[in-house]
Amino acid sequence: MSRWIQEGDNVDITNERKKGTFDTERMSAWIHGGPEVLKRRREILSFVKSIDDFKDPVPTEFMSREERILNNARKVVAMTDNTDQIDGSDFFGEGMYYQALTMGRDLHAMSLHYVMFIPTLQGQTDDEQLDEWLTKAISRAVVGTYAQTELGHGTNLSKLETTATYDSATEEFVLNSPTITAAKWWPGGLGKSSNYAVVVAQLYTKGECKGPHPFIVQLRDDETHMPLKGIRLGDIGPKLGINGNDNGFLLFDKVRIPRRALLMRYAKVKPDGTYVAPAHSKLGYGTMVFVRSIMIKDQSTQLAAAATIATRYASVRRQGEISPGKGEVQIIDYQTQQFRVFPQMARAFAFMAAATEIRDLYMTVTEQLTHGNTELLAELHVLSSGLKSIVSWDTAQGIEQCRLACGGHGYSQASGFPEIYGYAVGGCTYEGENLVMLLQVARFLMRAAEGVRKGTAKLADIGAYIGKTGSKTSRLTTHHHYTDADLVADLEHAARKQVFRAYDRLKKAQQHLSPEDAWNSVSVELAKASRWHVRVYLVKNFLNKVALAPQDLKFVLTDVARLYAYDIITSSIGAFLEDGYMSSNQMNEVKEGIYECLAKIRPNAVALVDSWDYDDKELKSVLGRRDGNVYPALLEWAQNSQLNRSDVLPSHTKYLGPMMKDARSKL
Amino acid sequence: MSRWIQEGDNVDITNERKKGTFDTERMSAWIHGGPEVLKRRREILSFVKSIDDFKDPVPTEFMSREERILNNARKVVAMTDNTDQIDGSDFFGEGMYYQALTMGRDLHAMSLHYVMFIPTLQGQTDDEQLDEWLTKAISRAVVGTYAQTELGHGTNLSKLETTATYDSATEEFVLNSPTITAAKWWPGGLGKSSNYAVVVAQLYTKGECKGPHPFIVQLRDDETHMPLKGIRLGDIGPKLGINGNDNGFLLFDKVRIPRRALLMRYAKVKPDGTYVAPAHSKLGYGTMVFVRSIMIKDQSTQLAAAATIATRYASVRRQGEISPGKGEVQIIDYQTQQFRVFPQMARAFAFMAAATEIRDLYMTVTEQLTHGNTELLAELHVLSSGLKSIVSWDTAQGIEQCRLACGGHGYSQASGFPEIYGYAVGGCTYEGENLVMLLQVARFLMRAAEGVRKGTAKLADIGAYIGKTGSKTSRLTTHHHYTDADLVADLEHAARKQVFRAYDRLKKAQQHLSPEDAWNSVSVELAKASRWHVRVYLVKNFLNKVALAPQDLKFVLTDVARLYAYDIITSSIGAFLEDGYMSSNQMNEVKEGIYECLAKIRPNAVALVDSWDYDDKELKSVLGRRDGNVYPALLEWAQNSQLNRSDVLPSHTKYLGPMMKDARSKL
Repeated sequence: MSRWIQEGDNVDITNERKKGTFDTERMSAWIHGGPEVLKRRREILSFVKSIDDFKDPVPTEFMSREERILNNARKVVAMTDNTDQIDGSDFFGEGMYYQALTMGRDLHAMSLHYVMFIPTLQGQTDDEQLDEWLTKAISRAVVGTYAQTELGHGTNLSKLETTATYDSATEEFVLNSPTITAAKWWPGGLGKSSNYAVVVAQLYTKGECKGPHPFIVQLRDDETHMPLKGIRLGDIGPKLGINGNDNGFLLFDKVRIPRRALLMRYAKVKPDGTYVAPAHSKLGYGTMVFVRSIMIKDQSTQLAAAATIATRYASVRRQGEISPGKGEVQIIDYQTQQFRVFPQMARAFAFMAAATEIRDLYMTVTEQLTHGNTELLAELHVLSSGLKSIVSWDTAQGIEQCRLACGGHGYSQASGFPEIYGYAVGGCTYEGENLVMLLQVARFLMRAAEGVRKGTAKLADIGAYIGKTGSKTSRLTTHHHYTDADLVADLEHAARKQVFRAYDRLKKAQQHLSPEDAWNSVSVELAKASRWHVRVYLVKNFLNKVALAPQDLKFVLTDVARLYAYDIITSSIGAFLEDGYMSSNQMNEVKEGIYECLAKIRPNAVALVDSWDYDDKELKSVLGRRDGNVYPALLEWAQNSQLNRSDVLPSHTKYLGPMMKDARSKL
Repeated sequence: MSRWIQEGDNVDITNERKKGTFDTERMSAWIHGGPEVLKRRREILSFVKSIDDFKDPVPTEFMSREERILNNARKVVAMTDNTDQIDGSDFFGEGMYYQALTMGRDLHAMSLHYVMFIPTLQGQTDDEQLDEWLTKAISRAVVGTYAQTELGHGTNLSKLETTATYDSATEEFVLNSPTITAAKWWPGGLGKSSNYAVVVAQLYTKGECKGPHPFIVQLRDDETHMPLKGIRLGDIGPKLGINGNDNGFLLFDKVRIPRRALLMRYAKVKPDGTYVAPAHSKLGYGTMVFVRSIMIKDQSTQLAAAATIATRYASVRRQGEISPGKGEVQIIDYQTQQFRVFPQMARAFAFMAAATEIRDLYMTVTEQLTHGNTELLAELHVLSSGLKSIVSWDTAQGIEQCRLACGGHGYSQASGFPEIYGYAVGGCTYEGENLVMLLQVARFLMRAAEGVRKGTAKLADIGAYIGKTGSKTSRLTTHHHYTDADLVADLEHAARKQVFRAYDRLKKAQQHLSPEDAWNSVSVELAKASRWHVRVYLVKNFLNKVALAPQDLKFVLTDVARLYAYDIITSSIGAFLEDGYMSSNQMNEVKEGIYECLAKIRPNAVALVDSWDYDDKELKSVLGRRDGNVYPALLEWAQNSQLNRSDVLPSHTKYLGPMMKDARSKL
């Protein structure tokens, strides 16, 4: 019997849980990394539930921005007060779960403190600086953020406008924002919460610009928290999501900071203004890969939440009759509903598998690097950039599909979807805009293609398919006999073809254009090649994981993995048909495969989403609640509305009431 | 010289406007229906700008829900006070424009009063009822809404649970909500603003249920505005969009209303309880078609706004270098940016053309109906349902593409995108959930397919292609010689093929399943057929309109129309290749056609979006402002943030400040 069934639950959802043909607890363990991890999740959950400071006085949807900021500040202090409750070294697992349970889908006053400020101190300070600043940051004596992006400047760091000009007379830098477009813009927690920041500015010394460098800068007075002289800062206003955070702006009017504010692990400026260039590259691929594996985990968690809500709601919502007189059916029985929701569930599984794998690869590469082996590094960096792009986009689209599948109630904030979407879709833009990321992947792919053509390619496993010859036609006979190997070969064919299509077009364009203009003129094709590269990886990785799953889980996971792969193929039919690689009969087999997967997943749908192990506290959705008792909960939720605090609003008293009264008097 | 150029504008945007190769004023006239219409638009605009009550004290993004509700109430009274300023008979033109300028992208307290309450009174009352209620409604002596949808019941009206039981002893109906799922849920303005509603309830008399009927019901006291006895109502809480409206819930506890509360134009109940069934169908296809043509206009207006913002911003935003040393480029010069944004612009043009056409067809059909000619009615109804579905979905996706194309700033509410998206995407669900609509279209298509197979089909122009034989292969040679007729034939081929694919699968499924289960088992294929049906119409209609455009506009409109059509073809490559109808060389021609369209549209992009004639008051976007002076405006906009009212927030004083102080004391 599923552990998810309790007395008093909605009957339909209980029946769904009884229908499941596998053990959800074993599946949860498989997803999360073993029974021990599950046990720890539940310990963390009960701890969080036991602490009053983690409770929201009303659902956060009903709070104003000011209220959310205040609510989040209380929670983040409580959260960081209690970090001994979790294994701090396991941020990917326990850390993310603990933060999700306590802070929900929002950034908080110390998000950038932990994700950017502290890591930058660790990576960029010299030993003396590290002692001073890391101690302060970790003890929470200061709250820091990371101020790099400017109002007029994002991706292209070389064009940042903020200047830090060295004055050897006083041994100080003068920080200045020469224009409005130089305003630092977007950093989380900058507007109101932080009192320190790492600020990236163009370093000038002895009349020369040495490019962008990081400085640690005090922004607000320790005691009064008022902005220091010459510093203008504030909140940048409401956004599509994360409105519990005070993303901020920051302008400097000739603010003097000490020479040692420059983080000096690599570049240095001596007291007399002599610039000492860094001895070796500052680039930390490793950290970027790690941050992106966190992002992929986070995105897949959001998509899984959306799929959980839509699947559970579809099992309790009854609407319309399929057979007249037999009563209204659960909407999960409509093929169109399954076609909308189940592929999102499959994607979430695939993305979770990728997140774990990338984290493990990161560990491997880190280990290899200690032995001077850089073989995998470039490919892994490229892959993680591409994954970030594909996963965040598919996640955003998938969340909206799940929301729309819930009809009108999906539009209400009670569903949780508006918050999930607003939070997750930001991932398409931050940590590298998706198209910029794809074009970085394409640089790698074009080098690989060139290598293959010249016979000099050295490709690690991830990109090895680019150098393969492959079959000229698909080996698919019927979808019942479609092996994993053949399926992967088909996807690799499509990917390889697009890589070389882009490569050939690039070469051709280079004949009459500058290298840069040629690149731009084929960039749509390049981005397509990158998408294929990443999707091949996602399918391969998911199939590999499933192949290793225990027998009692493998059969249902296979349905999910196949749905994921078939959905990719049938969304790009042209890629398989245009060179005669597949026949339309073969493509029809794949289409039939989808319908079969939908039908096979149907009885296991609720059990599958249960297996992700969302507690209602994490899911934050009236539609997706475990017990399925959606309707009374919606009515109760609505009572919190700000507008329901009084029966008659000023809008009536001041405007609509007098209007009607006047009209009545004239009737 | 473009009328859009003014002194002090951003230099880049001015240069773009100088580049345009056509007269924007002539294009605006073509889009909106002639120079006279343009003149009237500008008169309405200056009137609205002249009235203080239409001014928002701060941008609405910074208002709480309570503040928005109050702000909207003031504006809606002013708006309806001044309806003499516009031609009330031209809701599609002047009415929608006036409302957009005054109310922005939000519903208001009287939205349903005008869109549902009054039309229902007009359609469903007998003469005596009409006299009483229409007078009150039009004079604004009452504010009404339309309460049909229930918490547990949407599309399937026959399962509504609210009951109206006739009591002949007192000649009253007793309104009751027997369960929580019977709560009326969603009606606009129901929560706080309205004092009357048309309520749809199951009519019981003499112990028999006669199905759902409309009743006019007073909800709140005329003087005090307090809910009447037995009536429980309120706001349903925040949503993804339209939060300036009090969408509401409503529960009846045995509320007695007079017999004559039943709207008696069709069905009647006599004093003794005898039910008189309606003499003929109540179905008003005409009104539904009209409402949907309004929706399509509205949706296309939102997509055009998004495309305007993204195009203008892309012309002033400079980022990255294409050629090193030549300075940062306008991001509109990136092919990937053009590929993201320009197709959205093209869609908006196509959808506007469809909206006008549907409105005109509606007039024709109405005229035909007065002569008893129903030939076009069913096809038109079907087409308008399908258009609503395709247009709202493509609009939602298009808006998000435009937003993402603006990078980080697109995520800020300063961009306008979050509001545009939240408002527009609701259209995927209301007025008939999109998939339900597509399956209605499919009913027509399956009847048509059956007729064609049996040789009995009588198809009007819209569906005539279903009965054509068509060529077995595409006549496309190169995209430079691709005629409109050949292009349309190609799309018709794809549509026809999918219609018959769905039909054949349906017939096959019917051999072993009940008709209803068979239908469900092929519903994904049915929905696909419907999408093709509508897209064929959209392309044909757009090409036809462009063919009739004046020569000096036609050349640029042709680029836009071709981009629209090619984008559809290359998004469904399989549909053209799988039966050998097109070769991959032919498909490559279409792909090349897209790149050529992008390059040709590039210099006209800003002029094209200017031609939609958005004033900044309507556009409501810092990124899309006419003058292109985006950065100072962003900084100014942010000053309005609720969080910027004081330098130090309670979140610091209560939580973060003490945390840091404590840590400092221990250092």
